[in-house]
Amino acid sequence: MDWARENIRKLEPYVPGFQPKEDGFIKLNTNENPYPPSPRVKQMLGRIKGDLLRLYPDPHSDRLRQKIAEIYGFRRDNVIVGNGSDEILSIALRCFVGEGERIAFPHPSYSLFSVLGQIQGGEMASYELDDDFRLPPAFFSAGARIKLLASPNSPTGTLYPMEVIDRLAEESEGIVLVDEAYVDFAEESCLPLVRKYPHLIVVRTFSKSFGLAGARIGYAFAPEEIIQIMMKVKDSYNLNRLGALAAEAALEDWDYFRANVDKIKGERKFLEKELQSLGFYVYPSGANFLLVRDPEGRAREIYEKLLGRKILIRYFDDVRLKDCLRISIGTHEQIKQLLRALREILNGCSPSGTAGERKNEA
Amino acid sequence: MDWARENIRKLEPYVPGFQPKEDGFIKLNTNENPYPPSPRVKQMLGRIKGDLLRLYPDPHSDRLRQKIAEIYGFRRDNVIVGNGSDEILSIALRCFVGEGERIAFPHPSYSLFSVLGQIQGGEMASYELDDDFRLPPAFFSAGARIKLLASPNSPTGTLYPMEVIDRLAEESEGIVLVDEAYVDFAEESCLPLVRKYPHLIVVRTFSKSFGLAGARIGYAFAPEEIIQIMMKVKDSYNLNRLGALAAEAALEDWDYFRANVDKIKGERKFLEKELQSLGFYVYPSGANFLLVRDPEGRAREIYEKLLGRKILIRYFDDVRLKDCLRISIGTHEQIKQLLRALREILNGCSPSGTAGERKNEA
Repeated sequence: MDWARENIRKLEPYVPGFQPKEDGFIKLNTNENPYPPSPRVKQMLGRIKGDLLRLYPDPHSDRLRQKIAEIYGFRRDNVIVGNGSDEILSIALRCFVGEGERIAFPHPSYSLFSVLGQIQGGEMASYELDDDFRLPPAFFSAGARIKLLASPNSPTGTLYPMEVIDRLAEESEGIVLVDEAYVDFAEESCLPLVRKYPHLIVVRTFSKSFGLAGARIGYAFAPEEIIQIMMKVKDSYNLNRLGALAAEAALEDWDYFRANVDKIKGERKFLEKELQSLGFYVYPSGANFLLVRDPEGRAREIYEKLLGRKILIRYFDDVRLKDCLRISIGTHEQIKQLLRALREILNGCSPSGTAGERKNEA
Repeated sequence: MDWARENIRKLEPYVPGFQPKEDGFIKLNTNENPYPPSPRVKQMLGRIKGDLLRLYPDPHSDRLRQKIAEIYGFRRDNVIVGNGSDEILSIALRCFVGEGERIAFPHPSYSLFSVLGQIQGGEMASYELDDDFRLPPAFFSAGARIKLLASPNSPTGTLYPMEVIDRLAEESEGIVLVDEAYVDFAEESCLPLVRKYPHLIVVRTFSKSFGLAGARIGYAFAPEEIIQIMMKVKDSYNLNRLGALAAEAALEDWDYFRANVDKIKGERKFLEKELQSLGFYVYPSGANFLLVRDPEGRAREIYEKLLGRKILIRYFDDVRLKDCLRISIGTHEQIKQLLRALREILNGCSPSGTAGERKNEA
């Protein structure tokens, strides 16, 4: 007997990057922050009373939403928080897309977009980015219940400037959702456009720039009417109390946050130059990772040889990315170790890129 | 422009019990544990390093699933964990119910069942329990993609014995999901039936008996094939690291857990007798709450007068429950304060039950 719905039976689930259970890896594969969150988070945890945990959280997470709203100059009613930004994406699809209805997104982009669309039983419409990862004209004019766009895009790092998002919202009849998970590492955000359009959602997260991937707190800005719809669909108690408190503590330490982000942007510049000097093409990045292309086609071989040295980066089994590697920005020491290993590997690499048969986990 | 799907526009969202933001309430309205979780949870939190939070959690939550599996005599592949048991219910509906497909559940029961079904665009089939809250014969023979049953049931407290669940699974073609959120306070669980049926899911939570409502950790047992389907649909990183560690710490202190549950069962007995002596009819309960009926029809008035004294219990705006009140089992001191207030209120109550117009939050 087939218990599952047909779309679920056929579904190829999202495959997250490898999370090693032993120590000793240099982990540059899932775009985590290489530095811990603000020390205030640890102080907060030390003060937690068990009694706090026995109670359900505030179903509306009003305090955290208020803090986020104030920092970014919105009202609390323009903010929703979720169990990671992934939950916010899932809520949006459940609100706005029925079975057989169209979901549009570019390719290559965050592969979860398609997975969530399939779970919803929607019709996937994928639009190929050009060689510089710019949006194709057809994406702007496409008809869809929702368009999903990551900016900066993952895994390419491409930032779509405000004027591009503006045009996209202008030309789209359905919801436009911009996933700005990486935007704190970029020079520009489309957030001001939330005041201009009734159908624009901008999603963010504490996982990257705030160093709280383990706390699972995402958030989004949208017009009040859209937030109200999404609040109906979210689980009543979708935020854990500890994660919400961690996010609040992190927000209270803005200087730490800025310094952390600046440090990562500095290391990104350093890594970019070094990789270029090794002969890689480095795509422009507004994120805490770099996508690089090896003109000699050894990407997979390099990925596997680094894995053998316990250095994790990301290789994607995707025709558009077959010569590419995505490298998260680590600490300066981690980057130096990566570069040392890369130099050794490149010296001994087969020029044709005929790597082994080992299946990659990306 | 209507951005939302029609089923979402029409949706009356689930309304959780009131979570006061100030102190000073006696909170007997949302079935939280009146005692904190094991002291090991607080110890664990004090030892957390910030560095742990910067990393994503294990996407499969293998360690927690393994611990749960070992305690209950299953394999890890028979266990899924979620962001509260509510997320597990939501995952199940997304896996097994498409638009227009049938979801069956009894009434009165956990009102989230219907809300989640509506979000999914399913066809709701509600079956009235009899006056003793027993399942009607039609529920057993009903055709549905999934049947949802809470045992012990909320808000009635009714435990459905193993033989009833056995017959339900036997007669049902679709998935049978039994929500055992309260089962640790009961004398019997249907968990052994998971070995017998390929289509039975038993859901549990750390929110009640483990005193971890704020940590958002639910879990479920099912045959491996069912778990595999549900794992495809869950968010990759659906558990926060802190909550998962809190759950693990709580599981390691089984003596504390047993003593806590026994204490609550003892207080339940005490409260039951006292309420009977005040003239209430008390329904049999296998949960950490009691549903009581006031034969004189003053339920709403009593609820409101208790609220005026900052004692929160639950009144449901439901025709089947209009003479009823649900009272969570608090500490002995809280119960004594409740009883004192009840005695005073009953002495001054209008016998006809003509309470004010104030809209209740239940």
